[in-house]
Amino acid sequence: MRDQTEAGGDTEVFEHSIAVRWADCDPAEIAYSGRIPAWALDAIDAWWEDRSGGTGWFQLNMDRDIGTPFVRMEIDFRTPITPRHRLICRTWPSRLGETSITFRVDGYQDGALCFEGRFTSVFVTASAFAKTAPPEDLRALVEAHLRPEDAR
Amino acid sequence: MRDQTEAGGDTEVFEHSIAVRWADCDPAEIAYSGRIPAWALDAIDAWWEDRSGGTGWFQLNMDRDIGTPFVRMEIDFRTPITPRHRLICRTWPSRLGETSITFRVDGYQDGALCFEGRFTSVFVTASAFAKTAPPEDLRALVEAHLRPEDAR
Amino acid sequence: MRDQTEAGGDTEVFEHSIAVRWADCDPAEIAYSGRIPAWALDAIDAWWEDRSGGTGWFQLNMDRDIGTPFVRMEIDFRTPITPRHRLICRTWPSRLGETSITFRVDGYQDGALCFEGRFTSVFVTASAFAKTAPPEDLRALVEAHLRPEDAR
Amino acid sequence: MRDQTEAGGDTEVFEHSIAVRWADCDPAEIAYSGRIPAWALDAIDAWWEDRSGGTGWFQLNMDRDIGTPFVRMEIDFRTPITPRHRLICRTWPSRLGETSITFRVDGYQDGALCFEGRFTSVFVTASAFAKTAPPEDLRALVEAHLRPEDAR
Repeated sequence: MRDQTEAGGDTEVFEHSIAVRWADCDPAEIAYSGRIPAWALDAIDAWWEDRSGGTGWFQLNMDRDIGTPFVRMEIDFRTPITPRHRLICRTWPSRLGETSITFRVDGYQDGALCFEGRFTSVFVTASAFAKTAPPEDLRALVEAHLRPEDAR
Repeated sequence: MRDQTEAGGDTEVFEHSIAVRWADCDPAEIAYSGRIPAWALDAIDAWWEDRSGGTGWFQLNMDRDIGTPFVRMEIDFRTPITPRHRLICRTWPSRLGETSITFRVDGYQDGALCFEGRFTSVFVTASAFAKTAPPEDLRALVEAHLRPEDAR
Repeated sequence: MRDQTEAGGDTEVFEHSIAVRWADCDPAEIAYSGRIPAWALDAIDAWWEDRSGGTGWFQLNMDRDIGTPFVRMEIDFRTPITPRHRLICRTWPSRLGETSITFRVDGYQDGALCFEGRFTSVFVTASAFAKTAPPEDLRALVEAHLRPEDAR
Repeated sequence: MRDQTEAGGDTEVFEHSIAVRWADCDPAEIAYSGRIPAWALDAIDAWWEDRSGGTGWFQLNMDRDIGTPFVRMEIDFRTPITPRHRLICRTWPSRLGETSITFRVDGYQDGALCFEGRFTSVFVTASAFAKTAPPEDLRALVEAHLRPEDAR
């Protein structure tokens, strides 16, 4: 795990803000659990868009023929999510392998940790759906933002 | 239909911005049609939250026992929606009856009209699910922002 | 509008059954309105799959290069939908133009009409997203099941 | 882990069938990953409904004041999911603690394993959102269907 300070990497974790709405809540008056994984994936998509200057998953796939299908996700749910506060998803890449990447996404409301998740994708040539190493510019982009697994 | 200028009402239409994502697109590489009504409803929820200073549907229901179930929606789809631009939903109340309210929501991307919709709700006492007139403060709030049906 | 009896068309309307779940309900303890248009579209997709012997929208697009993007929807919501009964969506084509098709979808629970909708698509060559007349076999399929607008 | 044969428990695993649709697919022409956790939760809700003779999550909450919020989920994605086959979700409880329950959900298409997941909930008194032991009849119901973690 690289040392962010020495490496001159970013010191800020990307924060993706979600307006939780009535639409997202179930009769328990909290956000439905099945909604949360989709928000975490949205946060990762937003990370790519933000860190690359506009290339989210759609552009990666359509314009560069690169896909990042998920092979694993795990999420611990800590505190219920409601529409009373924005949901801030702190999102960072925590591991970059030869052909895989792991993101951490932690969701907070009003300072409280609501969920913490870990999401692993493989890089593929989208048109062939075949595993591949990411191109150099993307590898460099991820490396510049890598943070330890638990570096919240 | 009141004259906004004479009435001293707002001159700005509320704009709700949506980041369209990979998650929202179908294999035709555009946002799935079934996703669009939900975005329009989100825009109306966001209108309430913005115009009332924080009271969206969740707070209306939970804190004030007021619901606004929909009785009708109609949407014309004009241009496909993609993740390449933010989707700007121009949202305004166009009619206020004794117990009902109609919102217009028009979605734009990069200046092009993508959809135009019309959504009618009734006000209900949430706990009883019984039709009721809205309280005075909400009536005044809506009246201050009423715009003609076609006043884009 | 053709006479179904004379034409020897089907006498049965296609019924698509949906298990409404906790996941679909909002804090008002009924199915969220924004969920209903997506169910109606699912019913139309299921109509194609059922009536054609397996060719739903995915197969129409992928295997036959035919898309049916929506240009208009209108829905009247009559009665709240809950998980206590299956939602039966009676679904039929009510109009077939040169390049367009209109479906009616009416949703029932426990015998009560919950919503009634009208959905118009155009046929396109999927790869070009260009309006086109449907191929003869699809035209014949739709014609064999056409029913008047209000022939519930 | 109990022995199903000795215990006289069920020998059949509950299978929940999902019609994967165009609506569920992304531009990679497969079901969007963010959709899959929600399907797995639907399968668990359907397990309760089926095994209890009609008491899904909605009825558990509304009629019996029992909630089962999730505290953890983990899913491994094995093979892409498409609309070409029904998605069969084999679903069973694999662990029952004092106040918690773990379900396994494995999704198959055309005989191939598409995903395998593990989902842990706690039992709560719904109105108080306070952790509690499940009532005896639900404990007995779950125990009658408990299967080892890996007893596919």
